[in-house]
Amino acid sequence: MTYCVAMRLDAGLVFLSDSRTNAGVDAISTARKMTVFEEPGDRVMVLLTSGNLAISQSVRQCLAEARDEKRSLWTARDMFEAVTIVGEAVRAVHKRDAHALREAGIEFSVNLIFGGQIRGERMRLFHVYAAGNFIEATPENCYFQIGEAKYGKPIVDRVITPSVPLGEAAKCALVSMDSTLKSNISVGLPLDLLVYEADSLRVTRFVSIDEKNAYFRMIRDTWGQRLRQVFGEIANPEWDASQQAEFPLARDEADRWGQPVRARRDRS
Amino acid sequence: MTYCVAMRLDAGLVFLSDSRTNAGVDAISTARKMTVFEEPGDRVMVLLTSGNLAISQSVRQCLAEARDEKRSLWTARDMFEAVTIVGEAVRAVHKRDAHALREAGIEFSVNLIFGGQIRGERMRLFHVYAAGNFIEATPENCYFQIGEAKYGKPIVDRVITPSVPLGEAAKCALVSMDSTLKSNISVGLPLDLLVYEADSLRVTRFVSIDEKNAYFRMIRDTWGQRLRQVFGEIANPEWDASQQAEFPLARDEADRWGQPVRARRDRS
Repeated sequence: MTYCVAMRLDAGLVFLSDSRTNAGVDAISTARKMTVFEEPGDRVMVLLTSGNLAISQSVRQCLAEARDEKRSLWTARDMFEAVTIVGEAVRAVHKRDAHALREAGIEFSVNLIFGGQIRGERMRLFHVYAAGNFIEATPENCYFQIGEAKYGKPIVDRVITPSVPLGEAAKCALVSMDSTLKSNISVGLPLDLLVYEADSLRVTRFVSIDEKNAYFRMIRDTWGQRLRQVFGEIANPEWDASQQAEFPLARDEADRWGQPVRARRDRS
Repeated sequence: MTYCVAMRLDAGLVFLSDSRTNAGVDAISTARKMTVFEEPGDRVMVLLTSGNLAISQSVRQCLAEARDEKRSLWTARDMFEAVTIVGEAVRAVHKRDAHALREAGIEFSVNLIFGGQIRGERMRLFHVYAAGNFIEATPENCYFQIGEAKYGKPIVDRVITPSVPLGEAAKCALVSMDSTLKSNISVGLPLDLLVYEADSLRVTRFVSIDEKNAYFRMIRDTWGQRLRQVFGEIANPEWDASQQAEFPLARDEADRWGQPVRARRDRS
């Protein structure tokens, strides 16, 4: 599996991906899931992929090869045109592979996050589906996740709004990844982190994070430890009789197939 | 959907369930997912259900009706016999419904947590699958979740071991539920929380938690707020040149289909 998250903030864009891939638990490997398309001063676009690795690699190859020089990520006038080109690449792979996959009982499964900035336009961030259609991030919903998204969603929901500074957002993405790594073995290091500063039109902050990365190690150690500390500081529930107003005992017995919760042996 | 979690600790058992059920987003309702089988002084057994509501209600009915007085949860000699009876109930419902469900294109989907204690034996906790088979919690893996389990898994992974006291485990279950409620609309109040003290052989701590419950409101307010505070206290990543040892810039370009991450326009 995979975990990728990307955020569109006022100050820029944050992209983070893991690199674990597996075809069954006995076929675990490493595959980077971030691809950066950069023409400094003109455009930066980032693609994150999840789902069937054969499909997502094919999509990436289609986009990077850009056989049709008239219509490619390098010539797209704006991010909307660029994301439609990404969608077309997905559909091209679908056309080539979907029938054979269906014959083999394999779902055509791919999910992409695609975002960036082209000179003259604002930053944009999209979630592209297996049908090649897509939705865009908005101020109300300014992030996307693909892959094993659920473990790391609560912290993102609690922290991220468009006004959050880039450093804090990058930290949040890493904490979200840490929670996912902790709970799901199908997500793994190294991580690729790219932080794009609005209007820079070049990649200035891009790191590959492995076990040795001191900052991520600090996050892993500190976050778990501080979480347990905060957890310990919150009072346990009280079950004293005096607290029953707060923790009322449930009604003893309810009608049989109403919503009871308690069945007691009927000694007849 | 549903979120239920149960833990087997040295000091007792903790069971927590939500009560949201839905058949599509326009058919959201409330259904309690905890059923308690109690014969004070002799046995306490708790069943948590997720999956297709028609199936889980039928399983519950089979078990509570106990038509065969010779073989029921009330007569089971130990928890292993009891859980096999639960598995048989799942199989009985499968026999009755699975064919019609398959005709309708509906999966026979049900997941159960079943645990408790019968006099003369230790406490036991099981996860029962749709095939009626089951696994048991162990000291290494002392909790089970069913339904929307992923959002609330990281905090349980970080906190729960068999030696955790009951109050702290109940708090952890509620924090885990809070994260799930925050990120997934298909899980909702009221909650049912049952904390069983080892060898008590009766239900002494059982509460139904709604929006008005002061303790859960405190958890919801405090946890989110303290989480953001801890998050804020952790240093943001530094991108200064002096920090490049910790946050190295990725290598500029890689071979084309090795695992690169960066494609730059080839100006040929």
